[in-house]
Amino acid sequence: VSATIEQSTPAGILRSALADAGVFANAGEARAWIFDSARRQPQRVTSIPFAQLERWGFEPATGDLVHSSGKFFRVTGVHVRRELGRPAEWEQPIVDQPEIGILGIVAREIDGVLHLLMQAKLEPGNPLGVQLSPTVQATRSNYTQVHQGNRPLYLDYFVEPGRGYVLVDELQWEHGSAFLRKRNRNVVLLVDGHVPVEEGFAWFTLAQLKALLGEANLVSMDARTVIACLSMVDGRRGEAAIEHEVARCSEFGAAVLRSLATLRAASTDEELHAWLTWLKCNHHLNVRRAGLSGIKGWRRTDTEIVSDGGSMFKIVAVDVASASREVTRWTQPMIAACAPGTIGFLVTEIGGVLHALLRARSEPGTPDVVILGPTAQSALGFEPDGDEAIEMVLHPRSGARLRYAAAQSEEGGRFYQTVSEYRIVELDHGEDLAISPDCRWLTFRQIQEMLRYGLIGVEARSLLSCLALR
Amino acid sequence: VSATIEQSTPAGILRSALADAGVFANAGEARAWIFDSARRQPQRVTSIPFAQLERWGFEPATGDLVHSSGKFFRVTGVHVRRELGRPAEWEQPIVDQPEIGILGIVAREIDGVLHLLMQAKLEPGNPLGVQLSPTVQATRSNYTQVHQGNRPLYLDYFVEPGRGYVLVDELQWEHGSAFLRKRNRNVVLLVDGHVPVEEGFAWFTLAQLKALLGEANLVSMDARTVIACLSMVDGRRGEAAIEHEVARCSEFGAAVLRSLATLRAASTDEELHAWLTWLKCNHHLNVRRAGLSGIKGWRRTDTEIVSDGGSMFKIVAVDVASASREVTRWTQPMIAACAPGTIGFLVTEIGGVLHALLRARSEPGTPDVVILGPTAQSALGFEPDGDEAIEMVLHPRSGARLRYAAAQSEEGGRFYQTVSEYRIVELDHGEDLAISPDCRWLTFRQIQEMLRYGLIGVEARSLLSCLALR
Repeated sequence: VSATIEQSTPAGILRSALADAGVFANAGEARAWIFDSARRQPQRVTSIPFAQLERWGFEPATGDLVHSSGKFFRVTGVHVRRELGRPAEWEQPIVDQPEIGILGIVAREIDGVLHLLMQAKLEPGNPLGVQLSPTVQATRSNYTQVHQGNRPLYLDYFVEPGRGYVLVDELQWEHGSAFLRKRNRNVVLLVDGHVPVEEGFAWFTLAQLKALLGEANLVSMDARTVIACLSMVDGRRGEAAIEHEVARCSEFGAAVLRSLATLRAASTDEELHAWLTWLKCNHHLNVRRAGLSGIKGWRRTDTEIVSDGGSMFKIVAVDVASASREVTRWTQPMIAACAPGTIGFLVTEIGGVLHALLRARSEPGTPDVVILGPTAQSALGFEPDGDEAIEMVLHPRSGARLRYAAAQSEEGGRFYQTVSEYRIVELDHGEDLAISPDCRWLTFRQIQEMLRYGLIGVEARSLLSCLALR
Repeated sequence: VSATIEQSTPAGILRSALADAGVFANAGEARAWIFDSARRQPQRVTSIPFAQLERWGFEPATGDLVHSSGKFFRVTGVHVRRELGRPAEWEQPIVDQPEIGILGIVAREIDGVLHLLMQAKLEPGNPLGVQLSPTVQATRSNYTQVHQGNRPLYLDYFVEPGRGYVLVDELQWEHGSAFLRKRNRNVVLLVDGHVPVEEGFAWFTLAQLKALLGEANLVSMDARTVIACLSMVDGRRGEAAIEHEVARCSEFGAAVLRSLATLRAASTDEELHAWLTWLKCNHHLNVRRAGLSGIKGWRRTDTEIVSDGGSMFKIVAVDVASASREVTRWTQPMIAACAPGTIGFLVTEIGGVLHALLRARSEPGTPDVVILGPTAQSALGFEPDGDEAIEMVLHPRSGARLRYAAAQSEEGGRFYQTVSEYRIVELDHGEDLAISPDCRWLTFRQIQEMLRYGLIGVEARSLLSCLALR
């Protein structure tokens, strides 16, 4: 019975979230290391016409954009009908990549503080070239090609049993607006003993990562989703577990921490389940596959597949040259947002406990009718208009406090320079706001519990990872 | 902030689970009421050839057994390939009923004790004709046909918002061996004030229901699955919450209650998630629809559709006559098991905490690769052989204690006289048993938490509902 370890790990994660100093003396040193890594990994990414894609082409029967090996992914089309959200019906391109990838972080205690081994990883779509990424990012194709000599570093920790103590090991869903039910395995493994640090890798405390998340585009979406899965407080232990740490937090960080620890909430857990049940019972989501050439409202030029209205996103092609990756030149299709988005939580104290306003969304890639997302999400997909809560995030009124704001980009292996402003806006008396039936105020404990069961979408997970305690 | 109510409801449920006396003075009186109800609702069910079905027939294109209205359900076929369990590939008939039904129980405090309003409901497949069933059992077709005058009694509690305090409101999956991804809304609503008690309905304490579950076939599967969703202990509050009640339990009931309350466990919650993640990442389940006439290994006679091997189940047709239902005569197809099954948990104390051995199963109707079931389940589907844990349930060795044993039937509206022996077998030092990778020991707190998120199958939920504290 491993009760002792179980009880101590959220506490260890919390201590790491408060540790400004670690292997890097501070976040500034950590930041310098990223920029240094970026300089050592130059990359040239050029937009090209689809005709210049190598081994990628449009499949005659369907019009789908596919790789000649049948591997990687496929850009296909879907027809969507939904009963939650507007528009109620449309067609769009979507990425079909049925594999479950691994997003794995190796963790270790160094001088008594939990550190995470992160990689300065180059991706074609990244705004700065490199971003801090998980120790391992691997698709099944990656790691089953053992004999081709490009097995990812540190992979064995995540595919061999018993290599460490499990802090996180969950399946989490990707962007439902752009992927057809794609999910990844999010893993954090606490390892005992020496771990070799390869070129391009370094140890960070959670506080350092959260400090870097305060800046634009330094930490990848893949890293953000894994970080969001880490529980800093065991919600079952309550407020006693955080008593001593609250004093070391910023005012807002303390409110977040208390919200993670308390059982008090505006809605009971049963009421939240009842709400999810109501959403699932009373709203259909119907997604029918159609070939990419068969979808209405989109046109293909030599260089892009774009919607007639120009909204949502477009499909483009790029040529990538990089001396530092195992493959030094390749071409691939990518998704590119048509405009920078805004992704934000409205938060407020209700009965002295910080709550965030989550909105249920039905997207083409949503596995079970709805998934919970941020209050506002005007990125890649559609956003309902005329909702006061969304307005409050996009144009905070006077008196509202901007608790977090930074540009963060989506996954740079699939999304080309796709950046959104991530925001957390705090209101006084937010509970007086008229909210629509697809929204509910949740405490951070309630969000963290639902997250563990795959009910929180990637945009909301990204925002959660940005919450700093200091 | 409704913290006070939230904290008090599991305690109220626990008190009800210990209350032998209620509106009925004891379980014996409650039992007499069921048999009296059975006498007042005679029913005649006769096996008939398929040709005598009215408004049901075999669709020419597919061979599917369908109703001429297109409503109710459809018996179709599937081809199944799976990587978890043997056989790895087969074809079978399956029921396709895409609607989400309501299984709703109205609850009320009477003289300070929580009571559940149950119905003595007649169903053609029930061994004794009537069984104690939820207050409301309704499909969407039932409750949207408002103008046809057969709107179910008490339905409004469950379709109108705000009629009570939510104790349970979750979607739960039906038999994956016989239904194609069918789920129901399981609801318990705590109502304040007077509730009229209609003919055929009565109030029961949870202890009385659990006493009746100690006997064969008195409580329906639909009632069992809802009862299993009721949390007697808030797992987050720990052992302090149950201190005073343990003394009022039987020896085994006390062990169950402590297991529901403690955070100690053989595996951490994170390890259990990692196990589920491993199962989902490394085992495919592929279910392809095929017409009923297109499935191999099955033949249709005048009176049944049966597999060549004779195993699994068969499809039959019945004629039903009953004076007490709103429709007094009808015919319908039903599923009938070919032999009585056994459904059982192996339980053992590990580190002083009671654990049950759950087995992950991949069935044609399983929504996401695996769902957790009992240790042994030789009912309707296949059962792997050669597993010591299964042997231990089917043929308990000397020294093993049979903590529960009773025949219980599956849902009588679809399953014809389909009865299994439900069993809980306790071993000493069960943790020394060699178990296969599809099995894990869980505490009852861990099971209850996963149950809330739809990860526990209907057979295991049935067994959990049978656990009595007295």
